Amino acid sequence: MAQTSLRVEREHSVDRVVRRLAESARLDDVGDVPEWLAERRRAGTCEVRRIPFTRLHRWSFEPDSGNLVHDTGKFFSVEGLRVRREGAPDWVQPIINQPETGILGILAKEFDGVLHFLMQAKMEPGNIGLFQLGPTVQATRSNYTKVHQGRGTRYIEYFTGPRRGRVLTDALQSEQGDSFLGKRNRNMVVETMHDVEEHPDYRWLTLGQIHRLLAMDNLVNMDARTVLSSLPLPGGAGPVPAATQPDAASLSWLTELKTRHERTVTRMPLSRVDGWRRCDDEIVHTTGRHLSVLAVSVVAGNREVTHWTQPLLAAPQGLAALVVRRAADGVQVLVQGLAQPGTFDTVELAPTVQCVTEGYTDLDDPPPFLQHVLSAPPERILYSALQSEEGGRFHQRDNLYLIVEADDAFPRDEDLSHSHRWLTLGHLKQFISFGGHVNVEARTLVACLQSLSPEQGWTWTA
Amino acid sequence: MAQTSLRVEREHSVDRVVRRLAESARLDDVGDVPEWLAERRRAGTCEVRRIPFTRLHRWSFEPDSGNLVHDTGKFFSVEGLRVRREGAPDWVQPIINQPETGILGILAKEFDGVLHFLMQAKMEPGNIGLFQLGPTVQATRSNYTKVHQGRGTRYIEYFTGPRRGRVLTDALQSEQGDSFLGKRNRNMVVETMHDVEEHPDYRWLTLGQIHRLLAMDNLVNMDARTVLSSLPLPGGAGPVPAATQPDAASLSWLTELKTRHERTVTRMPLSRVDGWRRCDDEIVHTTGRHLSVLAVSVVAGNREVTHWTQPLLAAPQGLAALVVRRAADGVQVLVQGLAQPGTFDTVELAPTVQCVTEGYTDLDDPPPFLQHVLSAPPERILYSALQSEEGGRFHQRDNLYLIVEADDAFPRDEDLSHSHRWLTLGHLKQFISFGGHVNVEARTLVACLQSLSPEQGWTWTA
Repeated sequence: MAQTSLRVEREHSVDRVVRRLAESARLDDVGDVPEWLAERRRAGTCEVRRIPFTRLHRWSFEPDSGNLVHDTGKFFSVEGLRVRREGAPDWVQPIINQPETGILGILAKEFDGVLHFLMQAKMEPGNIGLFQLGPTVQATRSNYTKVHQGRGTRYIEYFTGPRRGRVLTDALQSEQGDSFLGKRNRNMVVETMHDVEEHPDYRWLTLGQIHRLLAMDNLVNMDARTVLSSLPLPGGAGPVPAATQPDAASLSWLTELKTRHERTVTRMPLSRVDGWRRCDDEIVHTTGRHLSVLAVSVVAGNREVTHWTQPLLAAPQGLAALVVRRAADGVQVLVQGLAQPGTFDTVELAPTVQCVTEGYTDLDDPPPFLQHVLSAPPERILYSALQSEEGGRFHQRDNLYLIVEADDAFPRDEDLSHSHRWLTLGHLKQFISFGGHVNVEARTLVACLQSLSPEQGWTWTA
Repeated sequence: MAQTSLRVEREHSVDRVVRRLAESARLDDVGDVPEWLAERRRAGTCEVRRIPFTRLHRWSFEPDSGNLVHDTGKFFSVEGLRVRREGAPDWVQPIINQPETGILGILAKEFDGVLHFLMQAKMEPGNIGLFQLGPTVQATRSNYTKVHQGRGTRYIEYFTGPRRGRVLTDALQSEQGDSFLGKRNRNMVVETMHDVEEHPDYRWLTLGQIHRLLAMDNLVNMDARTVLSSLPLPGGAGPVPAATQPDAASLSWLTELKTRHERTVTRMPLSRVDGWRRCDDEIVHTTGRHLSVLAVSVVAGNREVTHWTQPLLAAPQGLAALVVRRAADGVQVLVQGLAQPGTFDTVELAPTVQCVTEGYTDLDDPPPFLQHVLSAPPERILYSALQSEEGGRFHQRDNLYLIVEADDAFPRDEDLSHSHRWLTLGHLKQFISFGGHVNVEARTLVACLQSLSPEQGWTWTA
């Protein structure tokens, strides 16, 4: 009988991965990467124009439901969603239904003893700047099974079937719960030992280079950020916290919130979603706030097919802010349990503050800690940048991402409302490793928090 | 700023809980507990009779859908389910839809320095023997919010609202994926420091006493077993494995299986479920195999209301077997990833073998390891008992639960199919602690595995 010691093996390999990631993070000279990305932008023919819905090709509104669907029944559809909760009025809204799991994968490989990551100059029609730095593979199932009828997905073979390398991380992670119905993608990092074919749209970068690019506005795309958040790395040069599991009280707190936010979510005809009206070129909320649906025509030179039309969602600009503090055992982060209409499992861990800000300056009832993070003095702001959401589904949607260190005036633990809780960063990362517990905005902030280095005046202990 | 060391606090308290549980497990004289349960059976007036559907009170078949529903729209309904997978024929079947989360809670308290657990002599109409040992609280949301119009749920106040005690475990766990559509219950253990009112249907038992009762057929109900499986205890007297997290490869294996088994699950009218036909007193599969739906009339003296009628599901007897082995770092268990029609998240970790056996002796394609566990010599069988599934929804449904130690003839690790994988018991328990990863049959087997003691010739290391 095999007597393999699974635990010892695991600990050995996790430690080694963490050490190699930390080494890669220390090499952070971005060199000519921004120029390469700019050059790729120039090289790629790309034009995105808004069009009326009638000019969508192979997309149409179903006669009965008014749902916006592709004629293959594939890709995704824009439908209506009804959320019913006891003691509250029903909430209805448009939602993207995309019941297939895509792959967001970063390929890793050692060069001269240092881990590098194969990143892509990726065009997405809704991206601010059109091209951003994406993971090696960013493919819906329709993409990589070729429903597009275009060319296959480059490098997909490292992530599916009998793999050529070693899986470092691999979990199903959610996307925006305000816009997607239970959508998840498989987030993977795979290390290969083999030679990898080169391509001008792709470059091998160190983790340190990626971290520096993450400090800039709208440069590292959402798909790359969520995969980066899964790496077993606490930060650019900080100590690695011991692998810990969340305590019973934290798990119970999350369970309690899921039970408290129990609701029934059902799909409904888009044409019957009250509060939104359909015009020639958009479906828009009567207040002008909330999500809207629009259509674009895309002509591109370096994507799977060269011309297509598709619907996109637009959304007001928002804020996602994480309050952190340093304690004897490392960094702690203040998360909230947030129930969004499309969340796969009712409630996920979310940033301290997550809200729409555009047009909401007159909020009667601002979310907790909004003023705290917006009025933080510069020395308390550890990270601040605008980052885009998925440009394949959203039209120029971005959020301000902030990491703010708590000051002495911050509410004491016992004064926090039940919706918020301090976790160690190690605990939050373990929730991420299981998949399905941490929302995409919080995962972006974890990737940003990991990117901080001592040179930015940030140390990882109190 | 608070500098609380969350990690140190946690580790201290987990260790202390584990030690106290181990102490409670050593006291295993069942004393007069079986007699008390028998006495409760005699004291409770209870009669359960099958009735035709027309004699159901407040339950009826909806005219259009043929769904079997309660006239309040509460409790649960029996509907149809369609599972669609690429490249496979659709699968349809009846399913219970119960979109509310109940509470299964065990109250714990120290007496003379030893942890005891408040267990209930619980009548459920479908139980074999009618009365079994249940958790302190076993209540649907309808129960404890009094849709029954009966009396409130006893001891519920220890599990909801501002609690009187300390939560030891608390997670949402699934129920039978072949019969329920995404149903989950909150599994909780709460320790109180306060005096607790006594009641003749409840007794404080040590963990050791519960473990001895678990060795008997059909005595500890499913609701109690699933809660017990969440306790941070590896076994009656074994060493406690360090808190470990599953390795990247195990998490990736589960993610891969979820992706591979991707499917679309939709509710459909019960009347259109092919293969089943509705008679006066049952809805039955044309082969006589699979689930059937029937109705019962219940007269009972010690439940929330004294007379009611309700539907129940019946199912052929099955087998759930876990193959285990001892390695240098503790016990390892062979699990499979199993996709059942109603599973909340596509695939859950399941026993090595889980199948229906009644009427299936002529299986052309038996599941892997079936012969291995059925033909194991007595000295390799660590646990064997018949245990009932939930008597509030199932009519006399039970399964044979087996724990079998692998012998030298067992397939080598590299010869296992991709659907099976060895995990350490510590890893499996951590999957349980997060909720939603381990199916109810596997959780029963974990509770049974934890109940084994050295007196039964079982030690926890190789």
